[in-house]
Amino acid sequence: MTATGPEGVTIAPVDGGVTAAAGFRAAGVACGIKKTGAPDLALIVADGPATAAAVFTTNKAQAAPVVVSREHLAGSGGLARAIIVNSGCANACTGPEGMAVARSTADFVASMTGCRADQVLVASTGVIGVQLDLDKLRKGAIAAANILSRTGGGDAAVAIMTTDRAPKSAAVTVTTAAGTYRVGGMAKGAGMIEPHMATMLGFITTDAAVPAPLLQRALRDAVDVTFNAITIDGDTSTNDTVFLLASGASGVEVADAGYPGFVAALRTVCGALARAIVRGGEGATKLVAVSASGAASDADAKRAAHTIANSLLVKTAIHGGDPNWGRLLAAAGRAGVAFDVEHATVRIGPVVLFKDGVPFDDRAPEAAVYLTGSDLEIDVGLGAGGPHSATVWTCDLSAEYVAINADYRT
Amino acid sequence: MTATGPEGVTIAPVDGGVTAAAGFRAAGVACGIKKTGAPDLALIVADGPATAAAVFTTNKAQAAPVVVSREHLAGSGGLARAIIVNSGCANACTGPEGMAVARSTADFVASMTGCRADQVLVASTGVIGVQLDLDKLRKGAIAAANILSRTGGGDAAVAIMTTDRAPKSAAVTVTTAAGTYRVGGMAKGAGMIEPHMATMLGFITTDAAVPAPLLQRALRDAVDVTFNAITIDGDTSTNDTVFLLASGASGVEVADAGYPGFVAALRTVCGALARAIVRGGEGATKLVAVSASGAASDADAKRAAHTIANSLLVKTAIHGGDPNWGRLLAAAGRAGVAFDVEHATVRIGPVVLFKDGVPFDDRAPEAAVYLTGSDLEIDVGLGAGGPHSATVWTCDLSAEYVAINADYRT
Repeated sequence: MTATGPEGVTIAPVDGGVTAAAGFRAAGVACGIKKTGAPDLALIVADGPATAAAVFTTNKAQAAPVVVSREHLAGSGGLARAIIVNSGCANACTGPEGMAVARSTADFVASMTGCRADQVLVASTGVIGVQLDLDKLRKGAIAAANILSRTGGGDAAVAIMTTDRAPKSAAVTVTTAAGTYRVGGMAKGAGMIEPHMATMLGFITTDAAVPAPLLQRALRDAVDVTFNAITIDGDTSTNDTVFLLASGASGVEVADAGYPGFVAALRTVCGALARAIVRGGEGATKLVAVSASGAASDADAKRAAHTIANSLLVKTAIHGGDPNWGRLLAAAGRAGVAFDVEHATVRIGPVVLFKDGVPFDDRAPEAAVYLTGSDLEIDVGLGAGGPHSATVWTCDLSAEYVAINADYRT
Repeated sequence: MTATGPEGVTIAPVDGGVTAAAGFRAAGVACGIKKTGAPDLALIVADGPATAAAVFTTNKAQAAPVVVSREHLAGSGGLARAIIVNSGCANACTGPEGMAVARSTADFVASMTGCRADQVLVASTGVIGVQLDLDKLRKGAIAAANILSRTGGGDAAVAIMTTDRAPKSAAVTVTTAAGTYRVGGMAKGAGMIEPHMATMLGFITTDAAVPAPLLQRALRDAVDVTFNAITIDGDTSTNDTVFLLASGASGVEVADAGYPGFVAALRTVCGALARAIVRGGEGATKLVAVSASGAASDADAKRAAHTIANSLLVKTAIHGGDPNWGRLLAAAGRAGVAFDVEHATVRIGPVVLFKDGVPFDDRAPEAAVYLTGSDLEIDVGLGAGGPHSATVWTCDLSAEYVAINADYRT
């Protein structure tokens, strides 16, 4: 995280994660959903109604908590008091019973918190096709409510983990002419849930005051270049969700003038969490920023970057430390975007390996040395004559990925 | 290969591969392009001008032989006398020099054969970014021309191999009311070429008489459900090419009435070659027919089947023998097609694991036993209320795939 922002805005990292922003308390507890006894329930509660925004999975198989949270945000007009999250069970493909459990969970948290049920948002991650135990959730919610605190962000980040190697938190303080506010959050990654699928969850809070429509726009803008610009294996889940709540407790109001600074802060937090997810990808040993430049349009740039970043041949080459410009060009060539190999370039870190139709294989050893690092940049110039570019973060593909995802029954 | 066809047409397997059809001779030799000294040049020559059709890579980075062959087919009006193929060097990303080599190769074969240069088709597979040695090619072409024979199909199939585990040939005899003719061919698979990329090449011949426009239509129809319905890792190459030549030597003319039988035979040969390519995929241990059914359109069915077949989570689950219906549903759900999980079904072999929103996990052990086989069928019903379906053949993803594609330098 760097301390940069639009003119007149300073963005600096702080501790505290999802409770860095004033007006929020959180807790993480174990309620027995995970057989291991590890923490599996997180509760985030705002001191009063917060404005709320959300981005949900585009997968057409949507889990019960996604359906219920979407309804609640619509019903409340973009207000929320609490978020309850469980790990260990996704409550997906669970039919009417699963819907009833999700609704009852929200009802129960609403009673505890003293708010309307549609001001409670729910999220789940874990095994799909298994019913979520409402009784355990209720007991967990009570236990969590009893220890809610301004420093509970760390415990909450642990309680939403599945096969994540480490909890993921990030927060910044934002200094502007209008005053100082904070943006913080936590996420769980696309570490595969035994036995079914990956889920990405993100929970962001701020103590700026932001009207719900502007908050939704800001979340979209930030997610587009962060959580939506990462890829581990191109799969999406039934449960992917990012929530953003704004308490207003800092007294700083964000409207049109403050919007660029707010979005920059939000991108900083979401970006840090997103890159932490990739870095924690199953079997991942390298974080790779894949850029496509010289594109005829933003859409072309994005599509090319995604195609290159998802190519198995590219990901295995990176894993093996192979400066394989041919695979990079081939991926760009099949992305379905304007591309001219005679004007294309391939750059691996500082090393240009291909330019205007001509390979420079004598530079391959230098690029191979660069690829031994764990934080990499690769750029493919599409040669389409345009000024557009896009970046996607991905990880390498290792034999360990296959082992993790193939061998869970053995 | 099964001996079925449209009414009144019998299709039965025969030996001979690309020289099974009358009017063609072939040879395979070693000319020193491969450092190992393995065969690396194949020549196919028709006794007289044959009608010709082709399907080329859609990758925008197109190798010199693709550009030249495309020009020649246009220039000759769909006639060809000879095909020269080398393995060990793709002549891709080689600029003007590479184009000159491809053209000179065709000129040389044309002189040898006594035909126009535009009646010679060229194909290359191997390392990209390296110039092809014209001198070696010329010597190889002379050596091959000297041993051209009606039984040379086997040697030719060996000479086009790269990292293929085995040569791939298939042929059928087609018995119709109008007479008997043959369709045969050879292919090389998407075994990765050290050091750069995969290439799929296919060469099909027939002794039916088929006008060039109809031949092109038939090849498109057949490739669509065979070579274009296989996927190993979703990557395409700069050199992918399928040629189809018709000598007419059987005396059987294929026009509108004979078209269905001809396409059925072509599909049989192309299908056998395509499945052999998947079975020979790098690190592959299982051949999987992935179907999407109950789709709202053919395009939806095809897109869903491709998305499922390319999902890393699905491919690793199959490798591990894990009947993971959740990953199959999730892949269908993100395919961008009409999909309703409440009416979706998942069938692994004979075992229905998910139906109308309800999982049947008690049947998982039965499905796990089925998945220990090496020739598998998986069907996902999209629940979209339509009658459309599509099948894609793929292989599992193993740690060996990663090792092959990551570690070539070590």
